[in-house]
Amino acid sequence: MQKKATIEVSEGFPFYFPEITGVVTVEAKGQINICTVAMHSHVSFMPPMYAISLAKERYTLQMIKESGEFAFHFITGDHASRFREAGLYSGKDMNKFTTFHIPIVPGVATDAPILEEAFLSLECKVKNIVSVGDHEMVIGQVLYEHYDPTMYREDGALLRDHLNVAVHLGGLQFIRVGEEK
Amino acid sequence: MQKKATIEVSEGFPFYFPEITGVVTVEAKGQINICTVAMHSHVSFMPPMYAISLAKERYTLQMIKESGEFAFHFITGDHASRFREAGLYSGKDMNKFTTFHIPIVPGVATDAPILEEAFLSLECKVKNIVSVGDHEMVIGQVLYEHYDPTMYREDGALLRDHLNVAVHLGGLQFIRVGEEK
Repeated sequence: MQKKATIEVSEGFPFYFPEITGVVTVEAKGQINICTVAMHSHVSFMPPMYAISLAKERYTLQMIKESGEFAFHFITGDHASRFREAGLYSGKDMNKFTTFHIPIVPGVATDAPILEEAFLSLECKVKNIVSVGDHEMVIGQVLYEHYDPTMYREDGALLRDHLNVAVHLGGLQFIRVGEEK
Repeated sequence: MQKKATIEVSEGFPFYFPEITGVVTVEAKGQINICTVAMHSHVSFMPPMYAISLAKERYTLQMIKESGEFAFHFITGDHASRFREAGLYSGKDMNKFTTFHIPIVPGVATDAPILEEAFLSLECKVKNIVSVGDHEMVIGQVLYEHYDPTMYREDGALLRDHLNVAVHLGGLQFIRVGEEK
């Protein structure tokens, strides 16, 4: 490995991390919305909890605060660029589901729409919201999971040969897991 | 896509998410430690902040609480299984750096060891710790980044052709980005 470089950081991250883009959906006051989210992680096993971090000005965050619930989705690489494009617009001004042809079904425990094209969807009730710098971290308890059984082994691990996930490299660059370089 | 299945969840996540395993290092009271961490995400741009979630009983968590700092690392797929193996032992009982031949250099802003084999290391000062279910989420402000310049473009995005990251699929299964299936 080449000698490392060191940089002091104070205003944002100069270097991207590899990350798997997630998608968040929400319903509030009869309106539904969808956006992509780079900052997300499971944060507890028992009870199962998932956290997302959203910029304070995002309309999705406002809607989640109103409804107290959201759904988090993992999508395959086939759909990553379309969802990312949808994420560039605000749901305040359009129904992104119809504009970007995103098929949905109703949730079970929440009113957040479930994406038909997601291979794993987590229905969450908000348990805590923590302000962190220029974002707010929304921590939800996972009540229901919707999954594509063709993607998973019986023990719940992802099937290597069926895996199809886009890893974000920065900017508009993605690389698909399993795809040749 | 095959019809989706739906499951109620209350005790842990039955289905794995694809995730990029991270590594955490810490120094406290003259002792250094290292562990892998599945739950991690950046959570704010300005100031740059990174969060990790650690099981309450983990020794690394105790050391981070004592020192108020940690370093978070992204490692290439070449090293993922060795770091994961190191993560199966407690640093209470051994120096994992010598046992698993993990070369380190000193940090700049913290006493957390910097991994020579990481392509990106974030030196963090703890700003907040939030209890979430069976884990505690440690939120750190990033002060310094150490990076391998051969992995990055000038704009900070990862170089597609040099990318080498292991995505965790569940259990002991990993798949390398760029590797053929």
